[in-house]
Amino acid sequence: MRAFLENMREYVRNMKDEQLRQLVAEVPMDELLAVWDSLDEEEELKIFSLLDLDHKVDLITSIPVSSQEALMESLTGDNAKALLAEMDPDDLTDFIQSVSPEVREAVWNNLGDEARRETQFLLKYDYDDAAGLMTTRYLAIRPNLTVAAALRWVRRSAKAVETVYSIYVLDPLKRLLGVVSLRDLLAADDEALVQDVMEKKVITVHQDTDQEEAARILETYDLIALPVVDHYHRLLGIITFDDIIDVIREEQSEDVYKMSAVGASRATYLESSMWALVRRRIPWLIVLLLAATVTTNVIAAYRSVLEAAVVLAFFIPIVTGTGGNSGTQSATLMIRGLATGELHFYDVGRIVLKEMLVGLAIGVALGGLTVLRAMFLPPAVNLSEALAVGTAMCFVVIVATIVGSLAPLAIARLGLDPAVMAGPLMATLIDVSGLTIYFQTAKLLLGLT
Amino acid sequence: MRAFLENMREYVRNMKDEQLRQLVAEVPMDELLAVWDSLDEEEELKIFSLLDLDHKVDLITSIPVSSQEALMESLTGDNAKALLAEMDPDDLTDFIQSVSPEVREAVWNNLGDEARRETQFLLKYDYDDAAGLMTTRYLAIRPNLTVAAALRWVRRSAKAVETVYSIYVLDPLKRLLGVVSLRDLLAADDEALVQDVMEKKVITVHQDTDQEEAARILETYDLIALPVVDHYHRLLGIITFDDIIDVIREEQSEDVYKMSAVGASRATYLESSMWALVRRRIPWLIVLLLAATVTTNVIAAYRSVLEAAVVLAFFIPIVTGTGGNSGTQSATLMIRGLATGELHFYDVGRIVLKEMLVGLAIGVALGGLTVLRAMFLPPAVNLSEALAVGTAMCFVVIVATIVGSLAPLAIARLGLDPAVMAGPLMATLIDVSGLTIYFQTAKLLLGLT
Repeated sequence: MRAFLENMREYVRNMKDEQLRQLVAEVPMDELLAVWDSLDEEEELKIFSLLDLDHKVDLITSIPVSSQEALMESLTGDNAKALLAEMDPDDLTDFIQSVSPEVREAVWNNLGDEARRETQFLLKYDYDDAAGLMTTRYLAIRPNLTVAAALRWVRRSAKAVETVYSIYVLDPLKRLLGVVSLRDLLAADDEALVQDVMEKKVITVHQDTDQEEAARILETYDLIALPVVDHYHRLLGIITFDDIIDVIREEQSEDVYKMSAVGASRATYLESSMWALVRRRIPWLIVLLLAATVTTNVIAAYRSVLEAAVVLAFFIPIVTGTGGNSGTQSATLMIRGLATGELHFYDVGRIVLKEMLVGLAIGVALGGLTVLRAMFLPPAVNLSEALAVGTAMCFVVIVATIVGSLAPLAIARLGLDPAVMAGPLMATLIDVSGLTIYFQTAKLLLGLT
Repeated sequence: MRAFLENMREYVRNMKDEQLRQLVAEVPMDELLAVWDSLDEEEELKIFSLLDLDHKVDLITSIPVSSQEALMESLTGDNAKALLAEMDPDDLTDFIQSVSPEVREAVWNNLGDEARRETQFLLKYDYDDAAGLMTTRYLAIRPNLTVAAALRWVRRSAKAVETVYSIYVLDPLKRLLGVVSLRDLLAADDEALVQDVMEKKVITVHQDTDQEEAARILETYDLIALPVVDHYHRLLGIITFDDIIDVIREEQSEDVYKMSAVGASRATYLESSMWALVRRRIPWLIVLLLAATVTTNVIAAYRSVLEAAVVLAFFIPIVTGTGGNSGTQSATLMIRGLATGELHFYDVGRIVLKEMLVGLAIGVALGGLTVLRAMFLPPAVNLSEALAVGTAMCFVVIVATIVGSLAPLAIARLGLDPAVMAGPLMATLIDVSGLTIYFQTAKLLLGLT
């Protein structure tokens, strides 16, 4: 990739426009996209200006918002009009929602009447809802058409819609009566009526359905497109599989960020300013730091124990660290299970019992290992100290495993997002209980007061 | 969902078969799948036996392996034959690869000749490669056919292939000459030749391409199906978008598990035994515990400092915890950037500079906060101790941010997987450097030896 990037840069600097135009026409879009963020703005504008219209559309709908704006601004009136006319209404809606007011107005003025109407319709819907993903460019037919007539209509409309592969059958009030795949239409008799070959039980989502739920439904039924309806079962638009793939990717990033206490952002790393990055990170760090200061109070409460046996301080990080790791493992298994729909709160009894047994087995093993380590590796401590640390380790792992499994289930039950809570905040909870167990166990076993 | 599950259970217990058959025919597949894991085996078998053939296929290809086996075993010869005949060869191949040898043999004996040949062909390929995802049921035509003739061929074959929406143009040696979408075929003149309407620059993947790479290519180009070719550019099969969605989901789970130090597994949580869960978790916990014992040695090395100022022990968890959180944030941003292809090792200079500045800003803010907390909240310490803790916090955050960003980039550069290393193992690295900085700073500021 690096070599490819260097080559592109050199070509952009040294080639004549006509030569470069031929070259960029040959570059596969995925390779161009892979290096796009590493190009500077001047290089981006140069390459963009030499792409043909189709590639311009592909590129502009695949890159981050900030680059989109710059490219759009670089276009003169007619070019902008031509580009916008080629964009699908759902992409156009996303674009308009994310650009600055000035660019938005310029875009608006360059839209054709139909595109403006479509975009205005789509802008009514929430970005996170199923309706926020849909396009209005679908194929609709009446139920009393013959298959042959329907196929003629499909052939005529093929270029104007986003997918020809699912055809929706509507009544005069736009209510969804059925769906027929192009494949079934092709396999049917020319003389048959659409209403006799269509599937009447249509899988649909409601306009307010969460987009992640819409993704799961499209996935379950392996659909190319998913129709979105309103309260009266009128067809509002369709969501195509490629937009669902984007939702799944986005969801993936969101979950990973949440578990690492990083704020979400639609901007990429390289295009974010230093302050934008600080803003994404510092709020959670402050919350977690303040929460974690409870550990200071726990340890301070055992000051006399610590003064009597300062070696106990040596093991604080491995006790809290191992507790945190065990708890995170449990929590992750719960969060994935909840996300994929395998686990439910009503299974909580079975799950916690299983986790207790798992925690017991792991706790005994790690506790034993800790005793051996404490006795035989430097700084070697005496048997009673080693036993105190090992016993504490065992209890901490068991408690961490139970807390780690119970917390996400309970949080999900309350309707909150378990991914946010299972990350570092739960680690703090485990630290506090772990340290208490640790010092209490040590105090008892070492006969301190 | 719970109410739905309870209802299903009651129906299975009390209804007559014929009634129950009508009922399960009405249950949407996604709702059935959502509760499937919570049913017991007897209930599963009962419901499965009453589904019609299409729903049986949908169900069996969507559930975990262990349930698949039990259901397949429940079928008598003819029913098994009918079910297997309806399964797509790629699903069949996955199934055969994951069942026990006895079930495999029974399945093999019930396969038709063509399905056996197709499956045998697909079994040659690696599960993780692009070829492991493909189906051999695609539409292929010759370049010198007219559009009308091609459409007639499509209509005739519509039922036998997995997708009719991409049609592949092959020479007599099965080399891929082009591709034409059904949509373009429909939009073309009846008299035109396929070779004149086909797209000659076909986006393909090689049989050995990693499946995650294949997913990214299908995504970039919004393809319904992606052709897989061998070294001679012969078409081996195609990967359809629904299988790519499964890859993306799988990848998502894998990444989350890696970052939490949980071993991967194709079994779901509820179907895993307690020992299977212990085996998935304990190896990493042991590695991390042993790695973390280095922190014991670090603290032991500062025993005299600790004995002179035992309050320093109070702040050990917040120093290591905050360092870990900052480092994890940086690492997560890097890992996501690397995974989505936005970040590359050649940007390392820019990235580390940015992270240093971000770390400095966050470190100063959190260091200041720590000084205030240490001085004014119980257990309040004196100014010089508070300054020592705060200064150490600032340095720890800066170092953690740099380590957190540099480590994943370096690991990826070495061709290893950054997600594995950025999790708890990196936290250990940050703990060790953090504690060293902490005690060294405190020692200097408090004038201890």
